[in-house]
Amino acid sequence: MQDIIDDICATMKDRSERGQVANYIPQLACVNPGQFGISVALPNGQVFSAGDAATLFSIQSISKLFTLTIALGKLGDAVWSRVGREPSGDPFNSIVQLEHESGKPRNPFINAGAIAIVDAIMMGHQPKETLAEILQFVRFIANDSSIGIDEKVALSELQTGDRNASLAHFMASFGRFKNPVDCVLGTYFHHCSISMSCQQLAQAGLFLVSDGINLSTGARVVSAQRARRINSLMLMCGHYDGSGEFAYRVGLPGKSGVGGGILAVAPGKASIAVWSPGLDSIGNSKLGTEALEMLVQRTGWSVFGH
Amino acid sequence: MQDIIDDICATMKDRSERGQVANYIPQLACVNPGQFGISVALPNGQVFSAGDAATLFSIQSISKLFTLTIALGKLGDAVWSRVGREPSGDPFNSIVQLEHESGKPRNPFINAGAIAIVDAIMMGHQPKETLAEILQFVRFIANDSSIGIDEKVALSELQTGDRNASLAHFMASFGRFKNPVDCVLGTYFHHCSISMSCQQLAQAGLFLVSDGINLSTGARVVSAQRARRINSLMLMCGHYDGSGEFAYRVGLPGKSGVGGGILAVAPGKASIAVWSPGLDSIGNSKLGTEALEMLVQRTGWSVFGH
Amino acid sequence: MQDIIDDICATMKDRSERGQVANYIPQLACVNPGQFGISVALPNGQVFSAGDAATLFSIQSISKLFTLTIALGKLGDAVWSRVGREPSGDPFNSIVQLEHESGKPRNPFINAGAIAIVDAIMMGHQPKETLAEILQFVRFIANDSSIGIDEKVALSELQTGDRNASLAHFMASFGRFKNPVDCVLGTYFHHCSISMSCQQLAQAGLFLVSDGINLSTGARVVSAQRARRINSLMLMCGHYDGSGEFAYRVGLPGKSGVGGGILAVAPGKASIAVWSPGLDSIGNSKLGTEALEMLVQRTGWSVFGH
Amino acid sequence: MQDIIDDICATMKDRSERGQVANYIPQLACVNPGQFGISVALPNGQVFSAGDAATLFSIQSISKLFTLTIALGKLGDAVWSRVGREPSGDPFNSIVQLEHESGKPRNPFINAGAIAIVDAIMMGHQPKETLAEILQFVRFIANDSSIGIDEKVALSELQTGDRNASLAHFMASFGRFKNPVDCVLGTYFHHCSISMSCQQLAQAGLFLVSDGINLSTGARVVSAQRARRINSLMLMCGHYDGSGEFAYRVGLPGKSGVGGGILAVAPGKASIAVWSPGLDSIGNSKLGTEALEMLVQRTGWSVFGH
Repeated sequence: MQDIIDDICATMKDRSERGQVANYIPQLACVNPGQFGISVALPNGQVFSAGDAATLFSIQSISKLFTLTIALGKLGDAVWSRVGREPSGDPFNSIVQLEHESGKPRNPFINAGAIAIVDAIMMGHQPKETLAEILQFVRFIANDSSIGIDEKVALSELQTGDRNASLAHFMASFGRFKNPVDCVLGTYFHHCSISMSCQQLAQAGLFLVSDGINLSTGARVVSAQRARRINSLMLMCGHYDGSGEFAYRVGLPGKSGVGGGILAVAPGKASIAVWSPGLDSIGNSKLGTEALEMLVQRTGWSVFGH
Repeated sequence: MQDIIDDICATMKDRSERGQVANYIPQLACVNPGQFGISVALPNGQVFSAGDAATLFSIQSISKLFTLTIALGKLGDAVWSRVGREPSGDPFNSIVQLEHESGKPRNPFINAGAIAIVDAIMMGHQPKETLAEILQFVRFIANDSSIGIDEKVALSELQTGDRNASLAHFMASFGRFKNPVDCVLGTYFHHCSISMSCQQLAQAGLFLVSDGINLSTGARVVSAQRARRINSLMLMCGHYDGSGEFAYRVGLPGKSGVGGGILAVAPGKASIAVWSPGLDSIGNSKLGTEALEMLVQRTGWSVFGH
Repeated sequence: MQDIIDDICATMKDRSERGQVANYIPQLACVNPGQFGISVALPNGQVFSAGDAATLFSIQSISKLFTLTIALGKLGDAVWSRVGREPSGDPFNSIVQLEHESGKPRNPFINAGAIAIVDAIMMGHQPKETLAEILQFVRFIANDSSIGIDEKVALSELQTGDRNASLAHFMASFGRFKNPVDCVLGTYFHHCSISMSCQQLAQAGLFLVSDGINLSTGARVVSAQRARRINSLMLMCGHYDGSGEFAYRVGLPGKSGVGGGILAVAPGKASIAVWSPGLDSIGNSKLGTEALEMLVQRTGWSVFGH
Repeated sequence: MQDIIDDICATMKDRSERGQVANYIPQLACVNPGQFGISVALPNGQVFSAGDAATLFSIQSISKLFTLTIALGKLGDAVWSRVGREPSGDPFNSIVQLEHESGKPRNPFINAGAIAIVDAIMMGHQPKETLAEILQFVRFIANDSSIGIDEKVALSELQTGDRNASLAHFMASFGRFKNPVDCVLGTYFHHCSISMSCQQLAQAGLFLVSDGINLSTGARVVSAQRARRINSLMLMCGHYDGSGEFAYRVGLPGKSGVGGGILAVAPGKASIAVWSPGLDSIGNSKLGTEALEMLVQRTGWSVFGH
């Protein structure tokens, strides 16, 4: 395994076409695009890493996976009255679908859906309390109490977050919000600004590898059925309107973030985190996707074969 | 296995809520909704069946899986210049996406995409020749030379096929067709009218279970990579705008048809065909989906667990 | 003329079908739907009134006509870099068109367009200063210094204005705003809350009757060409996606508001204000439209005949 | 008047920017773009012409005005169950709106609407009979029995008419057609291929100038109310998604065709036909629009002033 990821890392370090670093959030725009990291965590606790796997980066939309998991724990299937579970066929920040469907987002992994999920888990609490709860959960599943929020990124998002503010107010106009829009947005921007390394992120995904249990710590996080369903949502919707492409090329459930990270899950096999800041035109890490494609070719981990 | 599917069959036979039989094609509208069949084909050649598994039904859109496989064999990746590989988020017969994206269908499993695929494989031949080729392929993968077309259904579709004619002319208006629209439509309607039983259909899916080889006959149909990619397309797009729901509840690649059939693939495990004519509001077999959900719960075959 | 409007008023007072009072702004929802008023102002200064023509009501979107006129005075044709001048074919608060057209509203009379116009005229000033300027202009063209803002309505709008906040943030996300979103929204909500009577409103429209000059006071407000162009915009877009219907039935340029008022202009003939709080399904005054239809039938004032 | 149109003609002959000749219909693509003609017909029977005013050209979508008038005569207000009367905000050949609104076109002047109108007036007759009826009507209102159809253009349209075929089949799929789609399309393509000169076209519009009566012949064609309503539809929808622009710049009801012709009506004043084959990006005659803008500036004929 170490050989495989060393190979991948070497290949990625040499690539000249690295995509574009997200430029609409100033703090992300200044990240060095030359970086690449990968970590593969096995259920038995082993973690293989290469490249910049210990470097912290902004997980951005990967946080949507964690808040969905929290929401399912708190609300159960009532979550699905807030968001749907179909691919949207639209970009991550599209508002068209909301107008046609009474302000209900298609799934929890587009921005509108994730904002609605944040509203769902706040339950009248303050942003600070909700953020503490999210952080606690992420630290628990990653088994690492050092994970925190990058306040500079959060501030940067807040100042340039008109599109997300528009999505939030739009949903609120349909009476879909139970907390003040500004509180929801503040919480949303902060939880997108959690900083993690590939090593931490790969650990955090282990509960989805083994039907809800993090075998390396023995902690059950969710039921087997829920773990499988979360994986199905990641596969269907985890890469916005590039989800079909990711399924076709990589064949694993995964969730990407505009910080350049991707968390992918090979059920029964491994949890994989990759990071490279350059994005493709849809907003998914360009080298991250290529690295996962290589990894699956070498390991045969696609869920679509055997 | 026989016990499991007998249980499922007994449960389904008793259901009062059976969905609505497709009514826009007269010949389909008169099918008895009380029927239910299931067949599970294992790579070793064993086939377990229950209920009306030997009854012929119109496979309708399941044919899209076969023409896509033929097209990939003939054109390779050039297929993707004709259709995309993303979920559309729209109903099976939507034309909106075509207008916004220059007449290129999002994927090969919505009607527009399948019509484009038929045009792609005709290559200047007559409908009769193309249909012969399609039938030959289906007989080959199902290892059953008796499979044929129900001419009454084909005629019925042709007479009520204005929506599909609209899709075809729309694409043609962007210069995307290489064969006359009427020839493409005639071929399309006929290949939707192939009649198969659950037993035959389950056999036909075996090559997708074992990375491209039908292990029961030893025939390699496609490469391992191609089989996996076809499976990914089925999972992402095989149930129209109900694909996310199917992935969530069943967790297997599958393709449905408005005749009430569904072909599902559990990689490395089995090829499963179910049939019940009543459809849900999206156009997928209501009891067929429920049966597959039960089967996966009993067998643990979801691709999202281990 | 007095006979005509007395007849109309009597007819309208008897109507049982009066439409629905706007219910999304609490302060508007409690207005008595039984009211009806009409005023016809002639270029020579005569004003004919009937019914509740002296009662103050919230002009709401009719204010869009005044801010457009101010914006054209300040920016000239540069206004058209901020908004278009085509009917949108969509409801007054639609956001779909904005996403498809880079955040540029189709015209100045849908909500998004009017919000963009408010941003255009603020030019870095505070809401209070901009509102003073708008009020000054309205008082000037209506020749009535008593016109003011209903603060209760403004507050009510602000508290329930999520849809408009969404539109504003959406446009801002395309870099289209030069003032803080909250300041623009505050100004927008307040200027929608100007209270006027039919008598005042009919006076305010006189400059559009006589090619830019209010003949009753002698004041030139805009050039002849600009007056005509404003009239064309009112005819094309003044009633949202009911503009075609209004042109068909009434045949005059007009601008409606969800407070139940309509200001209509018969070039060379008269300025007409009607008010009745009940709205049709599109959001235009039901009895107001019927009253104007009757008036045009009696007077032959349609711009489409002679 | 002759001086004015001579001036306009001289200006237009010199223009270097003349737009693009319609290229999707081969027979139209080969028309010389250097041509320009204008005719102004007064109610008293006088006709002033300049430039290529006697040259025959393909009236294309201007025919929609004639079939709408025929349909209103045959069906009265029942026409509005087949098409709406709102601007669509979409291009002339858009299909998106049809999908969202159950196959009912927004207005009779977009392609889908005109095709629906042709179906409405066929009433079970053959294309040949319907075409004879349309021609008879056009000859009657233009008072010229020589007007005919250019068969080469009709054939050219039929061969490249996939987009219109798509629109027709789409509407038919909603059960909206009473005649076979092919018959409707054949009739539609032929009536678009009527050839007329500016002189003939200006005469044909006279009934809309004088409230339904062609004063030069004394023939009443439609009621006063109907004439005004047809004018309102032309103003709102006569130039597709450039209708607002035309109303803003010209301020007259008008109908354009991709052959480069425009028929405009100044109620009480004149019927004006202009022709120049080059089109703007929306599909309206570039120089034709400019010529009308000049004419209105010189004559003050805008319906929005006095």
